[in-house]
Amino acid sequence: MSIDLKLLHSGDRRTLAKAITLVESTNTNHQKEAQELIQKILPQTGKSFRIGISGTPGVGKSTFIEAFGKELTSRGLKIAVLAVDPTSPVSGGSILGDKTRMEELSQDSNAFIRPSPSSGSLGGVAFKTREALLLCEAAGFDVILVETVGVGQSEYEVADLVDYFTLLMLPGGGDELQGIKKGILELADIVIVNKADGANKQNAETTKNDYQNAFNLMAGHDESVVQVLSCSALEKSNIKEIADTVFSNLDELKKSGSLDKKRKEQNISWFKRLVDELLKKSLFSDKETAKLYNELSEKVGASKANPLDSAKQLIDKFLS
Amino acid sequence: MSIDLKLLHSGDRRTLAKAITLVESTNTNHQKEAQELIQKILPQTGKSFRIGISGTPGVGKSTFIEAFGKELTSRGLKIAVLAVDPTSPVSGGSILGDKTRMEELSQDSNAFIRPSPSSGSLGGVAFKTREALLLCEAAGFDVILVETVGVGQSEYEVADLVDYFTLLMLPGGGDELQGIKKGILELADIVIVNKADGANKQNAETTKNDYQNAFNLMAGHDESVVQVLSCSALEKSNIKEIADTVFSNLDELKKSGSLDKKRKEQNISWFKRLVDELLKKSLFSDKETAKLYNELSEKVGASKANPLDSAKQLIDKFLS
Repeated sequence: MSIDLKLLHSGDRRTLAKAITLVESTNTNHQKEAQELIQKILPQTGKSFRIGISGTPGVGKSTFIEAFGKELTSRGLKIAVLAVDPTSPVSGGSILGDKTRMEELSQDSNAFIRPSPSSGSLGGVAFKTREALLLCEAAGFDVILVETVGVGQSEYEVADLVDYFTLLMLPGGGDELQGIKKGILELADIVIVNKADGANKQNAETTKNDYQNAFNLMAGHDESVVQVLSCSALEKSNIKEIADTVFSNLDELKKSGSLDKKRKEQNISWFKRLVDELLKKSLFSDKETAKLYNELSEKVGASKANPLDSAKQLIDKFLS
Repeated sequence: MSIDLKLLHSGDRRTLAKAITLVESTNTNHQKEAQELIQKILPQTGKSFRIGISGTPGVGKSTFIEAFGKELTSRGLKIAVLAVDPTSPVSGGSILGDKTRMEELSQDSNAFIRPSPSSGSLGGVAFKTREALLLCEAAGFDVILVETVGVGQSEYEVADLVDYFTLLMLPGGGDELQGIKKGILELADIVIVNKADGANKQNAETTKNDYQNAFNLMAGHDESVVQVLSCSALEKSNIKEIADTVFSNLDELKKSGSLDKKRKEQNISWFKRLVDELLKKSLFSDKETAKLYNELSEKVGASKANPLDSAKQLIDKFLS
């Protein structure tokens, strides 16, 4: 599977799609090629804004991405939409799978939509998306939207992938947080109450104000307060204002140097995570060590063995 | 340094103090003895309630522990107070160092107070405290209070040590969260607004209600809402009610089986953390691998190398 770098850099969509397929491949030769490709394109990456978009199922993520994406392309920006879906690691993902949910955007020549890959064997569910994101940047996209479902560990991986994390919510009280873990709120750079339309309009305003107050109160030391906005993705109301806010925040991050710093930390964080994973993989690839690990873990869990002793015993076995 | 197990189990304070000194020792022989000791006492551990007490400096942790501790000993409970202080890893800790701040409690025959140890070389700053806690349990203490400063990673370690995490706050708005990281709020099982006395009384009530509202709103799916209470540790007002709430929560956790489950997970989590640490220690103990790690980390940070490639290169080098 050879990728024409020139075509990729020119923004050719078929080449980009083929390159993403290459990095997603589980074939060993493909993986080697993929790593070489990533290494080659690295100098052409880093020029986009990377925006995560999360929220519980039913919050209207697709409709929001459609409206937000069209707003961006109308500003002359080329956007790519990627997805991380931990809920279907094998099939290839339910989110973004149905492109008809983004009918307008999928026909926009300035938009590229790619459904969720199956989970990568290394680096967690978001790792292949990280490489797809770099390929989109090499292909000249200005903004990369990474969609994900607000249900767990993948959110943290996505937060380590993007410059800016957007959390969509529904109008209504605490009950509406169903499905969102509390920790996810910590990741948000902005919260958007969607479905501020019809009978829900007033409710959405109340929710917005309540959450804004809560965020004001919860803001820790030296942290900027998360802004809460509302919109109707369906009626495309307030989408322009949201885009203005997001880009104003991103511009500020860039100007202050925070963005560069954040990306540097994110890169190192991925490296460390992969080192950890590979170390553990090599530990568990030794059958006897893996067996011992399980035995010790069981004993430690039941307070029948001491964690430190057990850990030392395991590592001695592994490195002997 | 031989420890008389019979004396330890009888609750002899000098033996307990000596045993804790043994587990805190950096001497290799002592460490070996310490691990044997911990292994021997494991069957006698697990019978206490383990309560973390955190809050920014100035919030009145010592005064609170004094008042709360006296309330518990007045109920016939034997309590031990330990400390984790990441701010002074070498000197042995500023918190609890000044026992005169807990004048009454330090003279109470049913209370045992132990200042913060210097940071353990393995397992993070809280690891030695974990072993001290087990020793206190073996010595028959009913409640172990673990004091810590609300400033960072150590809070997560302490949360992995205790059954119940108490966060103290000051009356006042968001500004008062100075020094507390937002993530710390996530760890809390209960929040207590201290210094509800004198001119601050009304302010403390307002703060309590504001935070209760915020917690109600922020409570995620399937999570119980954190309760917010107020007290004056100085005037010993509302301390009894707080103790009632804490023990009612703990009893519920115990009855439902959540406590056993939590402790099992905590044990395994310590084991995993120690395995990780020992693995990394062995990686970095090889000078060439450590050098390569730093080089690659630098390159990856600057987007000049690919995390996956770099991680593979490092592990190959290490295991070759």
